[in-house]
Amino acid sequence: MSPFETIAVAGDAGVLHLTLNRPAQRNAMSLQMVQELRASLAAAEADAAVRVIVLRGAGGHFCAGGDIGDMAAARGRVGETGADPMADVSRAFGELCVAFASTPKALVAVLEGTVMGGGFGLACVADVAIADESASFRLPETSLGVVPAQIAPFLVERLGYSEAKRLAVSGGRLDAREALALRLVHEVHPSGEALDVALERVLHGILQCAPGAIAATKALIAKARLQSPGSLVDEAAQVFSRAVLGPEGTEGTLAFMQKRKASWMPGS
Amino acid sequence: MSPFETIAVAGDAGVLHLTLNRPAQRNAMSLQMVQELRASLAAAEADAAVRVIVLRGAGGHFCAGGDIGDMAAARGRVGETGADPMADVSRAFGELCVAFASTPKALVAVLEGTVMGGGFGLACVADVAIADESASFRLPETSLGVVPAQIAPFLVERLGYSEAKRLAVSGGRLDAREALALRLVHEVHPSGEALDVALERVLHGILQCAPGAIAATKALIAKARLQSPGSLVDEAAQVFSRAVLGPEGTEGTLAFMQKRKASWMPGS
Amino acid sequence: MSPFETIAVAGDAGVLHLTLNRPAQRNAMSLQMVQELRASLAAAEADAAVRVIVLRGAGGHFCAGGDIGDMAAARGRVGETGADPMADVSRAFGELCVAFASTPKALVAVLEGTVMGGGFGLACVADVAIADESASFRLPETSLGVVPAQIAPFLVERLGYSEAKRLAVSGGRLDAREALALRLVHEVHPSGEALDVALERVLHGILQCAPGAIAATKALIAKARLQSPGSLVDEAAQVFSRAVLGPEGTEGTLAFMQKRKASWMPGS
Repeated sequence: MSPFETIAVAGDAGVLHLTLNRPAQRNAMSLQMVQELRASLAAAEADAAVRVIVLRGAGGHFCAGGDIGDMAAARGRVGETGADPMADVSRAFGELCVAFASTPKALVAVLEGTVMGGGFGLACVADVAIADESASFRLPETSLGVVPAQIAPFLVERLGYSEAKRLAVSGGRLDAREALALRLVHEVHPSGEALDVALERVLHGILQCAPGAIAATKALIAKARLQSPGSLVDEAAQVFSRAVLGPEGTEGTLAFMQKRKASWMPGS
Repeated sequence: MSPFETIAVAGDAGVLHLTLNRPAQRNAMSLQMVQELRASLAAAEADAAVRVIVLRGAGGHFCAGGDIGDMAAARGRVGETGADPMADVSRAFGELCVAFASTPKALVAVLEGTVMGGGFGLACVADVAIADESASFRLPETSLGVVPAQIAPFLVERLGYSEAKRLAVSGGRLDAREALALRLVHEVHPSGEALDVALERVLHGILQCAPGAIAATKALIAKARLQSPGSLVDEAAQVFSRAVLGPEGTEGTLAFMQKRKASWMPGS
Repeated sequence: MSPFETIAVAGDAGVLHLTLNRPAQRNAMSLQMVQELRASLAAAEADAAVRVIVLRGAGGHFCAGGDIGDMAAARGRVGETGADPMADVSRAFGELCVAFASTPKALVAVLEGTVMGGGFGLACVADVAIADESASFRLPETSLGVVPAQIAPFLVERLGYSEAKRLAVSGGRLDAREALALRLVHEVHPSGEALDVALERVLHGILQCAPGAIAATKALIAKARLQSPGSLVDEAAQVFSRAVLGPEGTEGTLAFMQKRKASWMPGS
């Protein structure tokens, strides 16, 4: 029995499927869902058998953004104490995004239907994002008088500074094809069935790659976003040496010479 | 009567139209024009009624870059004093670009004909840039033995580091379609009439968004370009809380629940 | 007689052609090749007559990445001393990439056949990259249990953070058309002959630009990647003033007024 109420969790041969599971609310991100996603991510990170996390939504939608009920409750608690309950709600979601953005596991988002606000942000966090043609993207925040605040950094990471600014200023409506053109998503498929086939292919490709090597590469690339290449040469040399001489590099080199699949590859 | 000689200024329902108005010089950016643009921007920023600034050129061209007369005059003053008059001309234009790039107002550029040198840079500064097929882009600086110096940061912001470098090294000639492919501009239209229709649509979209929310979002996105997501979580939480609990967030939430337009929307 | 064994060097009217020349190994990057490339780059930088460097591979391939023999030799020396021979191999290649990425000369890559691993990284370092349809790109590192470590910063510079991360996580296979869509390359041509014609056109364009102006522009753009525009206004003003008042700016202005080619242009 799953310990979770707002998400469904299923494991399968190295892949953890996390499904946002409040379909009646188009999977709006409640505080409980935030906590359950963080707990499931922490468990996955502690489990070497999990190599890829797939994030999707139940019922034909990905995620409609923040939960209105939680926002109303936080509004009701304003002034109660010295704290700032609205900032607390926002911070919890921001920490979730940062946790997914910095996970050493590979992260794939499967996008259908509504991808809005915080859901738009989560889509930007994933390493690989695939969609079907039903996917519809929007940043409604500024039209509601609020700010896409926690997701701003991930809009910039995915779309670049200039495109992030343009979308935020103008309401950020995109259909699946437009999202592909901006590389918000990396593939668009004509149907849910085609999307499932594409997901298998994406997962197969990721599972060819050694998990420790993926983790080390993601960490270096994150540093390279904000540091000069010259400042990273020494660190990169150490990362390379550790990988080559470690168990993955040893096995990978041996498998290559023996013309066989490495131990981490499906069907090896 | 306008206090300005080199620009035309017209206000209209939340929108300030700034038109570079030296058509005989294809709106080359004279020092006087730099000063008048800064003054009009400062006035707009002090006026809550102005929510969007539209920058365009008179006479079928956007802007041909720096004014040759000002450059010649600065050259003539070199050595006169301890100062560097050529650096002063450059700095004045750089400060103008930074002022437009960091304005809390939404900024739209409408691009026709020549978009060259400093004009190319201003096009990169705008939040949204739309063009018609007459628009023709060029960075002539290096072929004249000089440097696209003040605009270099905005080439990087708009096009990314690698594309900015490629263009600067090779003279940076682009027609409107190529500029669209690089996302230097966001829309290209077949005629001036279609461009005007597109501008109305862009303005309508921006005016759906609350002005304070746009300002706060632009400020956060600028920080996110140069800082890690994790370092921005607390600030983003405070920005979000202030917006939700402030007058715009309160009105936006109420309007949404009452299924009516928020007070800042046209026709509300 | 060339002092080099692993590269061929030929100069021609301002252009230095560096050809990776181990065709039997698809120009795999041996330590000797790294050293010879660094030496030839240093010589080129000391030679004002060299304005553009063209990097390509002999025998229909660009570069297959690191040399397996050097890696095996480094593995054999592990534990011999207190040093880390595998890190040394990596560091030497990283320093080569940084040297090419920060050269004041214009750098063009001509890409055919295999462009893999370190070769993929070098392609990302070039200011302009052109390919023919035979070009095939891959990041095989993580599937071998190792890390694309030294090239990570250049993947980010060329492709942006998000696309770099996606490719590294999923094995990074691209054909020439896909590489064009991601702007990893800037032009794709149907044949080797068309590629040679395109190279001449690219070189002609670059040679219109003054060499000192190109160098100053590249340096400013590199700073602008990691610094805010406002922090660069003073430096940009000084760079601009120096260029305008220096010999290139003086000659460029005079040639423009006299409607003739500037002294640095072919056929002047």
